[in-house]
Amino acid sequence: MKTLILGGDGYLGWPTAAAFAVRGDEVVVADNYLRRLLAQQTNSEALIEAPLLPERARLFNDVAGHAIRVEIGDLTEYEFVERLIRDFQPDTIVHYAEQPSAPYSLMSVNASRLTLNNNLNVTLNVVLAMVEHAPNCHLIKLGTMGEYGTPNIDIEEGWIDIEHKGRSDRFLFPRAAGSLYHTTKVLDTDLIWFYVRTFDLRVTDLMQGPVYGLTSPELEGHPDLLPSFHYDDIFGTAVNRFLVQAVANVPLTVYGGGGQTRGYLNLIDTLACVKLAADNPAGERELRILNQFTETFSVLELASHIVDAGKLVGLDVEIQSIENPRREAEEHYYNPANSGLAELGLEPTLVSPERLAAMLEIVLQHKHRIDRDRIMPRVSWS
Amino acid sequence: MKTLILGGDGYLGWPTAAAFAVRGDEVVVADNYLRRLLAQQTNSEALIEAPLLPERARLFNDVAGHAIRVEIGDLTEYEFVERLIRDFQPDTIVHYAEQPSAPYSLMSVNASRLTLNNNLNVTLNVVLAMVEHAPNCHLIKLGTMGEYGTPNIDIEEGWIDIEHKGRSDRFLFPRAAGSLYHTTKVLDTDLIWFYVRTFDLRVTDLMQGPVYGLTSPELEGHPDLLPSFHYDDIFGTAVNRFLVQAVANVPLTVYGGGGQTRGYLNLIDTLACVKLAADNPAGERELRILNQFTETFSVLELASHIVDAGKLVGLDVEIQSIENPRREAEEHYYNPANSGLAELGLEPTLVSPERLAAMLEIVLQHKHRIDRDRIMPRVSWS
Repeated sequence: MKTLILGGDGYLGWPTAAAFAVRGDEVVVADNYLRRLLAQQTNSEALIEAPLLPERARLFNDVAGHAIRVEIGDLTEYEFVERLIRDFQPDTIVHYAEQPSAPYSLMSVNASRLTLNNNLNVTLNVVLAMVEHAPNCHLIKLGTMGEYGTPNIDIEEGWIDIEHKGRSDRFLFPRAAGSLYHTTKVLDTDLIWFYVRTFDLRVTDLMQGPVYGLTSPELEGHPDLLPSFHYDDIFGTAVNRFLVQAVANVPLTVYGGGGQTRGYLNLIDTLACVKLAADNPAGERELRILNQFTETFSVLELASHIVDAGKLVGLDVEIQSIENPRREAEEHYYNPANSGLAELGLEPTLVSPERLAAMLEIVLQHKHRIDRDRIMPRVSWS
Repeated sequence: MKTLILGGDGYLGWPTAAAFAVRGDEVVVADNYLRRLLAQQTNSEALIEAPLLPERARLFNDVAGHAIRVEIGDLTEYEFVERLIRDFQPDTIVHYAEQPSAPYSLMSVNASRLTLNNNLNVTLNVVLAMVEHAPNCHLIKLGTMGEYGTPNIDIEEGWIDIEHKGRSDRFLFPRAAGSLYHTTKVLDTDLIWFYVRTFDLRVTDLMQGPVYGLTSPELEGHPDLLPSFHYDDIFGTAVNRFLVQAVANVPLTVYGGGGQTRGYLNLIDTLACVKLAADNPAGERELRILNQFTETFSVLELASHIVDAGKLVGLDVEIQSIENPRREAEEHYYNPANSGLAELGLEPTLVSPERLAAMLEIVLQHKHRIDRDRIMPRVSWS
């Protein structure tokens, strides 16, 4: 199988490339290091900064014996996307190539404009090139559970049957996201659904919750193979930020009341889900949407898990509520479905004190690199 | 009152400017003539091509005695939008500034990219500049009934209450548009709704059906004041195309079975609706959505009305079904609500043989300019 991974330099893109290469796929990764640049510009470099892609691919080939081809280029340029898809003719495209930070997307006018233009243009280029050159290819698009927001009804997997005044039809589940970044993924969904139903494409949209974790089995061979690991308020995800705060001996910063509930998953499960989606492609003219998380926690529950894990490695961790920089409900109903990936065979790797403690051990090795100034929120929604 | 009209060179933008100027508003129009350029590039120039904006504004001042200030610039550039909104401090912004053609949006990769980037960037710039410089201003955004597509349930005005598994919430009415152009307006809605609920903006989204008509009372003084009137397959709307076909003595081209039903309105009613919206602004943190059409017809019914009108002016008009270049349902349920504008006071100007005959009379004066080669569909969805 031939797999093209867009955003292959990222926290998820690189481990995905390794996972597909190890199982024998021919793998091409594409990236332009945009996230690295934005992290540098916002004083948000990673705690564990991975080498550039060509060096990592060389090292991975040495250690694991599998080739990963690297293409450096800007996926907002159609000609680059067209060349990749036309010449490689992938069976599967995994599309991670988006500006992924909610706070960044609201930092400034320029950051908002960059986020919208980058994310929408990459997605449009991919579907246009598929229509032109690879109509049978299966696109696996990374969406986010954040697209749904926190509605007062159960969140289904992407679609909902609506009965209204005695008639009924099936629609995209309504979406109302909490940041411009998350909103660009709502727009992606609308855009992709137009191309799927009008040009008979095959797409799986993985509505992913916040991911945590530092490594995956395919990357164990060498420390330089680990994915970039951000812990700051801009590019770090909640659990990863808490892990670093625990090690840095600063209180875990819970925004507001901490009742904000989300669906989380381990990096290892992200890889399992993407592989399951690739092995079970969407049908022609199907936009299959799967909610990709394994368990839900409130932010406060999450922080408590880190406190427990800290005890196992001798860390005395505190929790501190700080003023919420975001505009979001701090108490809300939350009951999202996630049976689709389980039915495809996902066996989840759940949070446990031992698993979190193992992550803390890795972070402890990099304690000297932690910059406490980038842990507190630097961007406000208002 | 101060009114800023974006896309002021357009078929609707110019008559809107005249209508607001005549009622005493201070009016600024902004445009970069993008539609003129695209029409030239696609051999789709208007039947009645209006003079450029400065000349029209001068003429309008001479004839009607009201000033319209003209700003020529590209609204996809934030600095231009920022300067307009910051310096003029409008009470109302009327946003027509989008690439408006469905066939154009699917003509080529470049045309698709231009449509998405133009339409989304103008909308984002407007809301960003409002957040920064005019948070209390009322934005009137022109959406389209085409955003909804043709669902199998009644179409409400923008919002729907969904009951699901014993719980309920209110959501944007689901949208599934029939072209990339219409889809960009779906994306606009999602984007605007994020900014309304997060930054407390005031927005009215007018979900407009296809508009027909050649003039408005404020433009009667001089033939050079008429709006640009397109009749081709790319920039012309259905009724306007039929009017020209009737005069050119070619059969009215009904796409496929002709059962496609839409909500239409007279240009005069568009002006009335925009004025009603301006006089009754949306509240703070309100995205008010109004369905803007006065009556629904199938394409075949519409064609029959033109046949009847033709008899009044001595034209023997035929109807011909041709292969449908679009991908759309030709028979479908269609029951959209439109009581909101009626409640605000709209008194509709409905289709009648006499009104259509009066339009045919104007088209007859320009018969020598009709190019039959641009009436048949030149863009296919597949």
